[in-house]
Amino acid sequence: VNHEKPYEIKDITLATKGQKRIDWAQANMPITVAIGNAFQKTRPFENKHIAICLHVEAKTAVWLGALQKGGATISITGSPGTTQDDTAAALVQNYGVSVFTKNEETYDDHLAHCKSILSFAPDLIADNGADLHHLIYNDPALKPLSKTLLGATEETTTGANRLRDEVGCSDFPTLIINDTQAKRIVENRFGVGSSVVDGIMRATNILLHGKTAVVVGYGYCGSGVAQRLRGMGAHVVVVDNNPLTKLEAHLDGFIVADLETALQTATLCVTVTGHSDVLNAAHFSIMRDGIIVANAGHFASEINEPALDQLATKKQALREHITEYTLADSKKVFLLCNGNPVNLSAGDGNPIEVMDLGLALQAMSLARLAEGKGDLTNIPQCVPEDIENFVVTEALKYWAS
Amino acid sequence: VNHEKPYEIKDITLATKGQKRIDWAQANMPITVAIGNAFQKTRPFENKHIAICLHVEAKTAVWLGALQKGGATISITGSPGTTQDDTAAALVQNYGVSVFTKNEETYDDHLAHCKSILSFAPDLIADNGADLHHLIYNDPALKPLSKTLLGATEETTTGANRLRDEVGCSDFPTLIINDTQAKRIVENRFGVGSSVVDGIMRATNILLHGKTAVVVGYGYCGSGVAQRLRGMGAHVVVVDNNPLTKLEAHLDGFIVADLETALQTATLCVTVTGHSDVLNAAHFSIMRDGIIVANAGHFASEINEPALDQLATKKQALREHITEYTLADSKKVFLLCNGNPVNLSAGDGNPIEVMDLGLALQAMSLARLAEGKGDLTNIPQCVPEDIENFVVTEALKYWAS
Amino acid sequence: VNHEKPYEIKDITLATKGQKRIDWAQANMPITVAIGNAFQKTRPFENKHIAICLHVEAKTAVWLGALQKGGATISITGSPGTTQDDTAAALVQNYGVSVFTKNEETYDDHLAHCKSILSFAPDLIADNGADLHHLIYNDPALKPLSKTLLGATEETTTGANRLRDEVGCSDFPTLIINDTQAKRIVENRFGVGSSVVDGIMRATNILLHGKTAVVVGYGYCGSGVAQRLRGMGAHVVVVDNNPLTKLEAHLDGFIVADLETALQTATLCVTVTGHSDVLNAAHFSIMRDGIIVANAGHFASEINEPALDQLATKKQALREHITEYTLADSKKVFLLCNGNPVNLSAGDGNPIEVMDLGLALQAMSLARLAEGKGDLTNIPQCVPEDIENFVVTEALKYWAS
Amino acid sequence: VNHEKPYEIKDITLATKGQKRIDWAQANMPITVAIGNAFQKTRPFENKHIAICLHVEAKTAVWLGALQKGGATISITGSPGTTQDDTAAALVQNYGVSVFTKNEETYDDHLAHCKSILSFAPDLIADNGADLHHLIYNDPALKPLSKTLLGATEETTTGANRLRDEVGCSDFPTLIINDTQAKRIVENRFGVGSSVVDGIMRATNILLHGKTAVVVGYGYCGSGVAQRLRGMGAHVVVVDNNPLTKLEAHLDGFIVADLETALQTATLCVTVTGHSDVLNAAHFSIMRDGIIVANAGHFASEINEPALDQLATKKQALREHITEYTLADSKKVFLLCNGNPVNLSAGDGNPIEVMDLGLALQAMSLARLAEGKGDLTNIPQCVPEDIENFVVTEALKYWAS
Repeated sequence: VNHEKPYEIKDITLATKGQKRIDWAQANMPITVAIGNAFQKTRPFENKHIAICLHVEAKTAVWLGALQKGGATISITGSPGTTQDDTAAALVQNYGVSVFTKNEETYDDHLAHCKSILSFAPDLIADNGADLHHLIYNDPALKPLSKTLLGATEETTTGANRLRDEVGCSDFPTLIINDTQAKRIVENRFGVGSSVVDGIMRATNILLHGKTAVVVGYGYCGSGVAQRLRGMGAHVVVVDNNPLTKLEAHLDGFIVADLETALQTATLCVTVTGHSDVLNAAHFSIMRDGIIVANAGHFASEINEPALDQLATKKQALREHITEYTLADSKKVFLLCNGNPVNLSAGDGNPIEVMDLGLALQAMSLARLAEGKGDLTNIPQCVPEDIENFVVTEALKYWAS
Repeated sequence: VNHEKPYEIKDITLATKGQKRIDWAQANMPITVAIGNAFQKTRPFENKHIAICLHVEAKTAVWLGALQKGGATISITGSPGTTQDDTAAALVQNYGVSVFTKNEETYDDHLAHCKSILSFAPDLIADNGADLHHLIYNDPALKPLSKTLLGATEETTTGANRLRDEVGCSDFPTLIINDTQAKRIVENRFGVGSSVVDGIMRATNILLHGKTAVVVGYGYCGSGVAQRLRGMGAHVVVVDNNPLTKLEAHLDGFIVADLETALQTATLCVTVTGHSDVLNAAHFSIMRDGIIVANAGHFASEINEPALDQLATKKQALREHITEYTLADSKKVFLLCNGNPVNLSAGDGNPIEVMDLGLALQAMSLARLAEGKGDLTNIPQCVPEDIENFVVTEALKYWAS
Repeated sequence: VNHEKPYEIKDITLATKGQKRIDWAQANMPITVAIGNAFQKTRPFENKHIAICLHVEAKTAVWLGALQKGGATISITGSPGTTQDDTAAALVQNYGVSVFTKNEETYDDHLAHCKSILSFAPDLIADNGADLHHLIYNDPALKPLSKTLLGATEETTTGANRLRDEVGCSDFPTLIINDTQAKRIVENRFGVGSSVVDGIMRATNILLHGKTAVVVGYGYCGSGVAQRLRGMGAHVVVVDNNPLTKLEAHLDGFIVADLETALQTATLCVTVTGHSDVLNAAHFSIMRDGIIVANAGHFASEINEPALDQLATKKQALREHITEYTLADSKKVFLLCNGNPVNLSAGDGNPIEVMDLGLALQAMSLARLAEGKGDLTNIPQCVPEDIENFVVTEALKYWAS
Repeated sequence: VNHEKPYEIKDITLATKGQKRIDWAQANMPITVAIGNAFQKTRPFENKHIAICLHVEAKTAVWLGALQKGGATISITGSPGTTQDDTAAALVQNYGVSVFTKNEETYDDHLAHCKSILSFAPDLIADNGADLHHLIYNDPALKPLSKTLLGATEETTTGANRLRDEVGCSDFPTLIINDTQAKRIVENRFGVGSSVVDGIMRATNILLHGKTAVVVGYGYCGSGVAQRLRGMGAHVVVVDNNPLTKLEAHLDGFIVADLETALQTATLCVTVTGHSDVLNAAHFSIMRDGIIVANAGHFASEINEPALDQLATKKQALREHITEYTLADSKKVFLLCNGNPVNLSAGDGNPIEVMDLGLALQAMSLARLAEGKGDLTNIPQCVPEDIENFVVTEALKYWAS
């Protein structure tokens, strides 16, 4: 790393455009902004460096500003494909953050960037998918960091699972943001519920009123999706395996059916199960002509696209985000976003407010780690309850007044 | 008009891309497609030419295909700024339609194009905003057409008002599509209600859940907008002048308030009144810091943007569709789409199904005119009731089965 | 009429109990109470007698109190079967009203009572079903009243129709309360919608959540019933003949079906059509075993009970308000309230607030008539628009603050 | 106990009326009926006696019929004040059950009746509030039963808590019905939610549309109540102490406020917290004139009626279930059902379907105990998961088809 010019981004001249994006995000992130203002007095990160792996986009930038008010110096890398190059430029030019990422980069580039930010000898890390943890645990050159780090955060459940498989490796505590009930309710039920509706409408320009929409899976995310589709006038049919979940959906006014029956009337089908191969060849064969199929689960594999591909005699992209498959009986199936999560691929992903809450949890967790380990032990663990309560109470203050 | 090469479009090589757009629209326009198939047998437009002024976009193209199945030859022009150049190319290359329009054209170009299509000596015209009617009534060279025309349709209320101001001019009947109750309910309440939600979400990426959203105006459109915002979890406050309308909104579970009171808590404000200057300097002054303001009425003037501009010490574009105004007390107001209708400007406008119903009314109306004038008199009038019932019944058949 | 003891009621000692009923109603009738307070200053009925035919129950009593504050002396009769004898006693003892009615009385008694109140030489009458009008038009002894009466009101649509059939008979204006849009929305959509749910729950003790409830008729009343049943978690299927009404219901999220199809899944069926014989032998034969059938329309004849009776091999009353019919195939049909309106028969009828609005229209209408005929002509006509607006504005003031 | 005439009820001649009540309940209890039919083949209770303490009313009777089909002989006692004497008569005359209870009986009578049914040397007991358990644990004459009993069920949480305080006493397993998630969702959220609306409407005859209704407590019961009041058009304000619960309510579209703020606008207030003294003198003092106050929690103490009584200058019963308190400033507060649960006191309590599910859990639990103890240990424990799944699956079969 060139510490004279400690960044590697696409184009520094994009900073003005990036700053505007950040300004819009900031206007809708009162919790994170307020925490930053409080940090300005308490300075929890005085003389501390935080190395961060998280999507480099406008909402993240607002959060970095809050950490800086707390005294932190910061280096950050993103994920291949999600970096906003203009936001990256603004972070370098206007915030003095050491940014190492470009939108178009390979996974090898990404790993190199992870090493770049770890070269700053951080006191704290904020991780995403456990990429930084993995390097520290396994790269002999980075291993010493585990002795000096005050602690870490991990954003995702995927990363948390990875860390829990390696329990025993750690010499520092890691707080898992996604373990909080607050994120499950705010992000999964409400955030996903509304962004999926947004994504489907953007991708298709269809009228949801009167559509028979099958929602497969009625967990936190699925029940949110079902509620919002109903809120837009759709006739929602719920498919789930758990009898009690089905009964709950039925009593809440939804039609409940098994998938095969549901597909006889469905004109829209959304998967939200967390499982693979939910829609497969047997299902594509019985679908109605003209059905629109979308996935809202984390992995594209909920819809078995290869099976659909094999059944199809013709396949063509229509509008952006819509692929038309023509099956042997000339029936058409329209797949959105190639099965990728429709809210992320066709929309802007989670609403800003949802990220404000999540990043506020991040900020407070890092401050707790910086203060000293306290009750924390050297394993992956949920965010302390008092922090969750504090952030939720802040959210209420800004959202419900 | 060069009748060897009877079209004037931007680029014929865009036809492939345009055809894909048309394919997607067609898959969601069963009513118009079915009418086209019926026309193939009855051939109502055999040896007839239809000159059309309507937005040249994918949904319109599907409708032209139906008219052609009925035997029509067709010339069409669009509106400045709304033409899809790729759809225009597909219409020329794949459908043999005489298209005269480009996305980037002036109003003078538009008038010239209107004259171009009237040069085909049409038997029927389909008009939008009464532009074609106006030329026929007033241009001596075109006046003779009024004696040979079998009849016309007019899509808009604005055009209908223009025609009604000139009653007495006409020698042929004009059927007004927008006079039907079907369009009012399907397009205004449901179509606008859902496309406004779509537009706001696209423009802002905000979470509607928990937002205090003021809807100004509770007519067909406004009540639709209020219902859909509530369906997405917003706390909706209704403002209207009519006491009975207010009572209805109140009993339907909405908070009802006068505009000044409503603005004390509003974090989102949508105008849908049909009147000008609904939000003006007095209102901007009392708005909360950070409010998002959008218009869903036909004219941008519902929000007095010049007044807002004058109050502002700073004005800058942030995200596409969002302009930030900073007022004297450093309060910020975020205006969407410069006050233009948020569903059209930030979204795709009316859902496909809504246009399917409207264009089916158009197709059946033109066929009725082609058959001979029947009960029709030579004035602007609503679509005959049996046609409205037929199209609504068709809609039920496809949408509710 | 014995003018020494000018009343004929069941038992004067019931007055205390009746007064308590009136107190509860009064606490929920702020519009009528406020009008009474205003009347106390303006005294529109000074030296005037008002003869009234209306249900003698607690809400009516509150209204009489308001008229008395305006200076009126009052005589009243009720309808056979609806008189609350305790309220009648309180009206005599505590209000000094001349009451002529008992709960158990014949139609002949009723007519005699009508004549009794007309013997007071009233200046104004308030009628219900046009009984008083009919006597004045047709009884030579009462005919002279038509020359001295300042005017009349009529509560019901049935009465209005009767009056309109006899147009030309009248020498005084009659204001029709039920012609107002305010009553249609407040009473039909909201009042009936909620009292029908109330009535069904009282009669049956069933869980509405998850029931497949067919609502036959989707006018003001029917759409209100459908909305409220959905609000209680029922799966609502709408049946209606009008295609546009059906499309509206479908887009509003209801399943729409023809009656025969709907009955294949219905576990509850409510008629609200205004027509006779909506459910007949053909329908009873295809109903599911165990279905609950109720009527919410004005006349019991919407359900053809004689046809059901004839199909039944056994008929027995179960709980109060529930009759079990066993058909030939041992299938059971449960009819509520013998087909009488379920909200009136199993419940308390219209909520107090609905009557407050209706009686406020009555009070203001009588005051207008007392002031002199003004713009009013000597025919049945709607309540003047300024009165409707005034009362609706008052309702907003009390209900929405 | 006179084993020649093994019953003690009020009046055997009431049997016909009681049988009709049972018939209505049976028509709506398909799960329990189906289990009875299955028992007829498997005969799990062959040569076994079941002694039961549970409310002697129609739904219970249907369940007894199912147990008899499984071969059981049965003795039963009820609770003081809840026995339906006519149902008791039908059980004796038509079912041959040994019934020991009258509606009007003292607590001492009740204990004597408990001993009467235990004199039948039961193999199984079904308990309610742990009265039978308590006698067996503590009465030396009954203690030997604990060695011969195959097991027991307990209906209530109150009884379960009592049993858990005495852990170690038991020589047989006790299955706690109310521990199942199925009962919590079906009974608490949906059953209570709808029966509270029912109770309020019966008690008051008010219009819920447009009322500002405060719901205090947003657990399973409270969120159900809030949802249903909203479903009837009320403007619902939620009060809760837990920040995350408040945030959830806010995002689900409810207004969230602290109790003091909420009472400034409330015209209806319902407590559902499970805590005492939720509404006390401080709250009554700030309530609006004319507010209606009801409790939906288990204990009347949620509303501090003595405090209200002390504040009042006058107190009088109005309609049944409504008490009017006039405070010093002539403000009126209307308390429903003296603070007893409004759904039970003013309505019929839980809908039949809810009891069908609960009694089906009872029936299957008793059969499991009769089969031998299996995996069961000699302590109070939840109903086995496979039984809960079976009953929920049955519920789905009957409710969702």
